[in-house]
Amino acid sequence: MAKSQALQSNLDVDYVISYRFAKTDKAKAVAQFEKLCEALANVGLQTEVRNGDSHSVLLFVRVASDEHLFGEIYRSRVRDWIHGVRAAAPSKETRESLEAEPLYEAERLRIIYQLITNPRSEGGAGITPKEGEWEGVESVFALHDHAYNKDWIKKWSSQWLLTTEDLDDIRNRLGEKIAFYFAFTQSYFTFLVFPAAFGFAAWLFLGSFSPIYGIVSAVWCTVFTEYWKQQEVDLGIRWGVKGVSKIDIKRKEFQHEKTVTDPITGEQVGFFSASKRFQRQLLQIPFALIAALSLGAVIATCFGIEVFISEVYNGPLKSVLVFIPTGILTTVNPILNTLLTQVATRLTDYENYETAAAHDTALTQKIFVMNFIMSYLGIFLTAFVYVPFGNVIVPYLDIFNVAVRPFAEDEKQLHHTNSNWSINPDRLRKQVIYFTVTAQVVNLGMELIVPYLKRRGFAKFKQIQSDRAAKNGGAPPASASDPPEDAAFLERVRKEAELDVYDVTTDLREMVVQFGYLSLFSVVWPLTAVSFIINDWIELRADAMKICVEMQRPTPWRADTIGPWLDSLSFLTWLGSLTTSALVYMFWNTSTGPDGNPSNIQLWALLLTVFFSEHLFILFRMAVRIVLSKIDSPGLQKERRDRFLVRKQYFEENLSAMEKIPKMSDGGGEITRKSLEEDARLGSLHETTPETKFWGRQRGWRETASVARGFIERAQNETTVERKKEL
Amino acid sequence: MAKSQALQSNLDVDYVISYRFAKTDKAKAVAQFEKLCEALANVGLQTEVRNGDSHSVLLFVRVASDEHLFGEIYRSRVRDWIHGVRAAAPSKETRESLEAEPLYEAERLRIIYQLITNPRSEGGAGITPKEGEWEGVESVFALHDHAYNKDWIKKWSSQWLLTTEDLDDIRNRLGEKIAFYFAFTQSYFTFLVFPAAFGFAAWLFLGSFSPIYGIVSAVWCTVFTEYWKQQEVDLGIRWGVKGVSKIDIKRKEFQHEKTVTDPITGEQVGFFSASKRFQRQLLQIPFALIAALSLGAVIATCFGIEVFISEVYNGPLKSVLVFIPTGILTTVNPILNTLLTQVATRLTDYENYETAAAHDTALTQKIFVMNFIMSYLGIFLTAFVYVPFGNVIVPYLDIFNVAVRPFAEDEKQLHHTNSNWSINPDRLRKQVIYFTVTAQVVNLGMELIVPYLKRRGFAKFKQIQSDRAAKNGGAPPASASDPPEDAAFLERVRKEAELDVYDVTTDLREMVVQFGYLSLFSVVWPLTAVSFIINDWIELRADAMKICVEMQRPTPWRADTIGPWLDSLSFLTWLGSLTTSALVYMFWNTSTGPDGNPSNIQLWALLLTVFFSEHLFILFRMAVRIVLSKIDSPGLQKERRDRFLVRKQYFEENLSAMEKIPKMSDGGGEITRKSLEEDARLGSLHETTPETKFWGRQRGWRETASVARGFIERAQNETTVERKKEL
Repeated sequence: MAKSQALQSNLDVDYVISYRFAKTDKAKAVAQFEKLCEALANVGLQTEVRNGDSHSVLLFVRVASDEHLFGEIYRSRVRDWIHGVRAAAPSKETRESLEAEPLYEAERLRIIYQLITNPRSEGGAGITPKEGEWEGVESVFALHDHAYNKDWIKKWSSQWLLTTEDLDDIRNRLGEKIAFYFAFTQSYFTFLVFPAAFGFAAWLFLGSFSPIYGIVSAVWCTVFTEYWKQQEVDLGIRWGVKGVSKIDIKRKEFQHEKTVTDPITGEQVGFFSASKRFQRQLLQIPFALIAALSLGAVIATCFGIEVFISEVYNGPLKSVLVFIPTGILTTVNPILNTLLTQVATRLTDYENYETAAAHDTALTQKIFVMNFIMSYLGIFLTAFVYVPFGNVIVPYLDIFNVAVRPFAEDEKQLHHTNSNWSINPDRLRKQVIYFTVTAQVVNLGMELIVPYLKRRGFAKFKQIQSDRAAKNGGAPPASASDPPEDAAFLERVRKEAELDVYDVTTDLREMVVQFGYLSLFSVVWPLTAVSFIINDWIELRADAMKICVEMQRPTPWRADTIGPWLDSLSFLTWLGSLTTSALVYMFWNTSTGPDGNPSNIQLWALLLTVFFSEHLFILFRMAVRIVLSKIDSPGLQKERRDRFLVRKQYFEENLSAMEKIPKMSDGGGEITRKSLEEDARLGSLHETTPETKFWGRQRGWRETASVARGFIERAQNETTVERKKEL
Repeated sequence: MAKSQALQSNLDVDYVISYRFAKTDKAKAVAQFEKLCEALANVGLQTEVRNGDSHSVLLFVRVASDEHLFGEIYRSRVRDWIHGVRAAAPSKETRESLEAEPLYEAERLRIIYQLITNPRSEGGAGITPKEGEWEGVESVFALHDHAYNKDWIKKWSSQWLLTTEDLDDIRNRLGEKIAFYFAFTQSYFTFLVFPAAFGFAAWLFLGSFSPIYGIVSAVWCTVFTEYWKQQEVDLGIRWGVKGVSKIDIKRKEFQHEKTVTDPITGEQVGFFSASKRFQRQLLQIPFALIAALSLGAVIATCFGIEVFISEVYNGPLKSVLVFIPTGILTTVNPILNTLLTQVATRLTDYENYETAAAHDTALTQKIFVMNFIMSYLGIFLTAFVYVPFGNVIVPYLDIFNVAVRPFAEDEKQLHHTNSNWSINPDRLRKQVIYFTVTAQVVNLGMELIVPYLKRRGFAKFKQIQSDRAAKNGGAPPASASDPPEDAAFLERVRKEAELDVYDVTTDLREMVVQFGYLSLFSVVWPLTAVSFIINDWIELRADAMKICVEMQRPTPWRADTIGPWLDSLSFLTWLGSLTTSALVYMFWNTSTGPDGNPSNIQLWALLLTVFFSEHLFILFRMAVRIVLSKIDSPGLQKERRDRFLVRKQYFEENLSAMEKIPKMSDGGGEITRKSLEEDARLGSLHETTPETKFWGRQRGWRETASVARGFIERAQNETTVERKKEL
């Protein structure tokens, strides 16, 4: 089989399980692997084993018995129906229901993945990668569809805008969770066209800190955030996943305190008291403080050093010293970030959430706080500390003098600078440009190039190692035992096994942070959106490429939202209404901005501006929500149609019975005669009650009407009589 | 039949239709009444007619054919199921489903009412009281259950707190909408215990404008509002109505512009363009302005006159003139209010909403705005205009001098007062006491006494009229033609026919406005809650009495919320966080409050206080929401249990099929042999594809495991070899 063919076909493989036994005792590894094979066979999966790289074997898995798969599909669909994800109950015959709604690729892969990983009690094989007894199971991954990937990249590279069909395609291949990321980025990108155009015009004609640009930008952010919320619902319906985020997925790592009887199901379930969890959650406060203080201290120190060196200091080695803060930031920050992320993860684990959704939300919140500080604190410091209070604070930066004194040639060099120092009004703009252009480009580059270099380096290292092993007469490479016709295919699989696992939240976070710059600070430099629109066009394609080339094929999870990031988006939009108005108040109409003297800023006017702007924002957001809720979307229409069809079906099934009801008016006379006889019979059986007497006076509606005629005619006559008398 | 017996039994009557023909031509009235009887008979209702008072007849209606009722019940339950109000679909056999869930009284009455009033196309008789061809149908009402009413009043009068069972009872008798009002008032009353106790303590030890009281009060308001939102859900589930507010009820008055094909049902439906409605909604802006200006002008003028007369003016007739503002307010305000309410109703009609819910929301919003101005503007003026700016503004009140000059005996009397005038610091407190004590008592009295007097006066008037008629030898009273055994009963029914229709929103509005005083101004006078708790204890009983005695039995509508008033509640809580903090800032620690000189108030400090307080409030509200959402309630448990049972039933029905799946591991050998044969057969039929070759190498999981054993052992050996070499 040629290499190109190896890329074309996946040989019916559904999943590959990479089993590593480097650290395990031989006998134990063999026994555990045997258990693995048996567990998979038990849920109807066929297995084939091949040699893997360096102390691992690759176990290929495909569905052999459909019954188990059908069972899992049925279970999944009933669960969906109960949670309102589906309008109608699935047909009780799984085969039938499957014929009515065939599986799409991502759904099939997801269900097989669940078949492998779900606990035995829920009908799965109970394989939990890297955990407990399955520590040897390094990864469970599907194989890339290279033909599709090639088409995908090719198509997107030549397309200006992505269509909904493109997104559908991603959903069918990679699942809704990833599709939601692409849909979000695509929506964001499309929406960016307006602020990019308006921002360019504002840059040309209005300049920085224009209140008009500020208002337009805040309006745009609000409309986008609210639009996306609607769009999520719409896409959720389109992809048949609306409501899946409400399905509780129990975390396997959940540790219960004690076992209690569930009041709902009557089953024994693990229980962890909410008050205990709350106590643990309180640890978030010291964590947030430490994160804010440590990250803040690093950023503030670097900021101080930078200001001192570039603006105050005038001594020797300035050209070298100026790089110190950047050096500190680029070394200390990532370390601190990694450290804090680890603490955040541990803390979230310790908080011991019962469901995956709660766990993710808690973790995302912590990560958002860290990202917020790292991304925006520097600009906040410039805008709200350096510029207004610069002249008051900067002289205190003299403490750095002590540090640089050894380098100074004479005392004079250090001192005379302070007296005539004034703040650099351009610093804020430069900083915003740095974060919205330079940092974005660097980031994009890192995302693509670092994994490539890593992959290359790793391949090289392995090459050297195996060369040495061959020279030493040691073990032959893993490929030595490959059947020749599978060799190319297996080589490809071994490469894919080495790849990283794709985490969509990282990409999502990047977009949300980017949105933050736009909402918080774009009034400083109206070209921000122009930079972002270019960046994001590439980003979308780069991410597609990354998934295809740099990462293992992701397990296609479902989602009906971008999750907790949506809250971050709302938060940033709200905060934007505060910062934008404050920036506009402070800097507008002062060509250079405030002069560093706080007395020039009227605190009451600033507060009034911010207060007014915030409430205007809240009102406007409410209006946007109302308007958007009125707009009908294809998704909502589809949902209503589905519900209507279910209802119609029910009514129709019952309609025949309903139509047999005899109409009283048709056979009025008959019924009257019948009921007369009936009443006579009843009257002879029982005593006459007041009720039977009361209701017995008029038989049938005709009699009622004729009695009424009497009343009406008499009443009318009386009126005539009375009138005559009055005359 | 004795009179007491007439009160005991309703003679099986389900509904009474009062048909008035005073203004109609005799022949037309007779024909229309005949149509009425026929329409009712067509939906399975039995009719009896009796003479009514002054040109009306009373048509008694009861269910004769259950089939129509069952049809309506089934339709209602399917609709509920589709909208998620019920967890399980109703059994297709209505009789069966009715046996499983028998009707409660309110449900039965509601469904019969719908049977009478629903359009023919939906299976009803299409009787629309007071509208179109049914203009003669004055009212459709059920008869009071006097025995129950007596017990109810007796029970409540002797009970300190209402239990959930008491509320259940109301729900069973009067329907969920009224039960929700009582549940809300009861919750509010229970919650009031805390601020009443704390307020009393604050009044004793902290005095007015205490920041501690302000914080406690804001916390209480927030907790109550959020608690009630949860409680609504819980009660909705308890009463099986959760989600009914989402069921769209089409308004009969809806005017369509054109007919379009519904994209969902394919039916022809009326359409009214949203943009046209939006244009009409824009009329709300001038309406709100006019309402605010006219009401505001009246209140502000009266306020000005009052301040002038009581504090500035010192001339003759002061004791008389001081009543002018009260006189103006009590005459002009109700007139203006009635006028504006009419305009609001017309405007809402003109906005032409499709559903009853949208219509109600739009109307409630307008009424809330009016009530807000009427109830709170006076206090706002005192607190935020009179007290801070009094010394600046009051001298301008001299314009009133011109009006009172004729009464002045000498010029001096008018002028010397201005110079040494200073604001009355006690005015704010007095005003709050007026609104929270005096006005509440007066209001309660009006609610009970006015309808009583009206009823009495009306009875007297009728007595005189019929006496005169008898003297003149005119028409005998309507009761003349009554059968003697029904006379007492019919007299009672005639009285009930004359009663007013109960509107629960009026009572609800009263409670929300009361809550507003607590949230906005109670920091002025901490005893506010003490007054309210006494008032509300009586109010709850008085309302029960009102419904039993003063009003027709209300049609039992369903509801799962107190509706748009909930938004008003949230709004008042939010606004309270602003006013309370502002009041505390301005008045705390100044025994007399600001001296009317605005320079004493630092605007920036006021703004900072309000800004800080508002955001603290928003954060706290978020925390309360999170905590409350974590707390499990009996209602939510019930809902989950219902859903679980549905799911379990579905799984169990399918379980037998699932268990028949052959386990691959059990018959591993067999299957291998079989599949070998199968493969051989397939191999001879087709060419061997790469897939069959790849998957054909290992048969069954045992073979896979043994191949893997080879790989693992070899790899381990290599490691040993390598290690040895390295040593």
